[in-house]
Amino acid sequence: MKSERLFCNQIFTIMATIEYLNIPVNEMEFAFQSILLKHGFTDEKAATCAQIFTANSVDGIYTHGVNRFPRFIEYIKKGYVDKDATPSLQHQFGGVQQWNGNLGPGILNALHATDTAMQLAQQFGIGCVAMANTNHWMRGGTYGWQAAKAGYVFIGWTNTTGLMPAWGATDSRLGNNPLVIALPYNNEAIVLDMAMSQYSYGALEKYAIQQQPLPVAGGFDEHGAITNHPSSILQSKRPLPIGYWKGAGLSLLLDLLAAILSGGLAVHQINKQQAEHALSQVFIAIDISKLGNTSSIAQVTQNIIEDYKQSIPATEKDSITWPGERVLATRKNNIVQGIPVVKSIWEVIRSLK
Amino acid sequence: MKSERLFCNQIFTIMATIEYLNIPVNEMEFAFQSILLKHGFTDEKAATCAQIFTANSVDGIYTHGVNRFPRFIEYIKKGYVDKDATPSLQHQFGGVQQWNGNLGPGILNALHATDTAMQLAQQFGIGCVAMANTNHWMRGGTYGWQAAKAGYVFIGWTNTTGLMPAWGATDSRLGNNPLVIALPYNNEAIVLDMAMSQYSYGALEKYAIQQQPLPVAGGFDEHGAITNHPSSILQSKRPLPIGYWKGAGLSLLLDLLAAILSGGLAVHQINKQQAEHALSQVFIAIDISKLGNTSSIAQVTQNIIEDYKQSIPATEKDSITWPGERVLATRKNNIVQGIPVVKSIWEVIRSLK
Repeated sequence: MKSERLFCNQIFTIMATIEYLNIPVNEMEFAFQSILLKHGFTDEKAATCAQIFTANSVDGIYTHGVNRFPRFIEYIKKGYVDKDATPSLQHQFGGVQQWNGNLGPGILNALHATDTAMQLAQQFGIGCVAMANTNHWMRGGTYGWQAAKAGYVFIGWTNTTGLMPAWGATDSRLGNNPLVIALPYNNEAIVLDMAMSQYSYGALEKYAIQQQPLPVAGGFDEHGAITNHPSSILQSKRPLPIGYWKGAGLSLLLDLLAAILSGGLAVHQINKQQAEHALSQVFIAIDISKLGNTSSIAQVTQNIIEDYKQSIPATEKDSITWPGERVLATRKNNIVQGIPVVKSIWEVIRSLK
Repeated sequence: MKSERLFCNQIFTIMATIEYLNIPVNEMEFAFQSILLKHGFTDEKAATCAQIFTANSVDGIYTHGVNRFPRFIEYIKKGYVDKDATPSLQHQFGGVQQWNGNLGPGILNALHATDTAMQLAQQFGIGCVAMANTNHWMRGGTYGWQAAKAGYVFIGWTNTTGLMPAWGATDSRLGNNPLVIALPYNNEAIVLDMAMSQYSYGALEKYAIQQQPLPVAGGFDEHGAITNHPSSILQSKRPLPIGYWKGAGLSLLLDLLAAILSGGLAVHQINKQQAEHALSQVFIAIDISKLGNTSSIAQVTQNIIEDYKQSIPATEKDSITWPGERVLATRKNNIVQGIPVVKSIWEVIRSLK
């Protein structure tokens, strides 16, 4: 109880300091680019990384955009991420390629892997790139949007460090292993980007800071009861997998497949490292322009979404959105109004220049 | 309230009649085979369908084994399933094939599709078979075990009729669209077979009959509150997707991909039919014998499972099992002791002879 009070006091201190700035898109991208150039990135790599960190922020995925940028620089400095490394092909059979990410920047490696999976799909209908020894790809949705906007179906996932326990356990041996599934839609894309935990630690902290209960149960409290009290879960370190035993199982399978297909590290090995790096990732693309029903696919997608949108909302507050729809709304808004950034985070970023 | 009392009375009536028989494996398989032959199946098709319905029951998946067999015969009689139809190839590009299931028995079509995906994987490293116009595959895990025991990684899914609402909605426009992921393990397999709803209607009914609360929240009550009271959910018809909005999103994406890749029906179209048939399914196989790291895969899998099994159980009652582990235990038990079958269901099956 004493530690919980202490924790709440810390939260109040943090709360008192939260102030937001609206940063124009170009300003953010230019700031990132300058910092990356200063840290020795080539022009091309700096431009690409800056663009993706900015785009993730524009899309409202701040945790894997602006908020994460300082840690990316820290990982470069500490050598967890090798800014100069590029991935190398290890093995190919037909539409399957295995790559070594050589600990290069996760964003650059994942963009390359997605491009390669699409090229394989052009040739073989379906392509699979498995990459070992890569780094955090930031927002998985990035690669779903990349492939879907280019006209491909995409299925991809990454493993992570241990972030949640197996079902029935107390120690975190499972990753939250985000899974991304995407397809083209209406000149944009439908992109599902979901971690295997119901809430990330970042989300739990956000609700704790705001002293709000979670909208749905998110973990166990110290007595082993399921709770929607975020600070109890932060203390127990037992966040819930999505669908309880189901998401725990899916997390395990995604890790098994990532490690086997790439020949890279599994969660239990990543867990033993000092930092979350040397990850294993899988990128599958399907070239739908090569299907027999290509001409009807846009209409089939439209019909499914139209039916979905006719769902009857449970209350006046509920709106029925497809995965990616809110991202598009946030994107539109942030482009016009600037990207909301926690002032203290922006100050840290400015200090990196 | 009146209808709820009525519902509870019905449950008590059902409860009073529940009695189990232990049916030896051979006896069940022979019974199924005889009935299928009587209903005009060829020797080969009767043998295969009987074997799968029995194997699903041996593995403890009674809902998609013995309990479902009478409905399979009913669907044959009503013409929803064409016992004589075989699937036909519609289109191929590289490792992707699109098939028409021609409304044949879902089990036979899915076994064929899985075999075909494995053949494509032999040739192209990864193979994808998408099948339109097929029927209920019963237990999705069947095809995961089939592929994994043959040495392949398997990812497959089916769409279904509408069984749960979109997140924030009240009407059931989403399928529970089971997803299967499998890989070889220790001469057996690790097989995840999970529907997108937290509990199936069958499971909700089972808990309601036993007057037990669900172990975890499974849906909404009539007031829109999340509940673990099974009969409230049966009344509201609002079962929960796994991971709330996440599983709802995953269900939508699996349906979109199944319909697009196969050129077949989507959930909203299946929903408008008199019965759940003419489904769309996807079968992806990866030939891991063609990878560069083939020799280490068994050990990598073993190491991941060994770490997983070292998880600290939350209570003395908790055991940490991997997907498929309990199935193996049930299989062993049912082979020795016979398959537990509700007496009234076995009587229905005997009457079909």
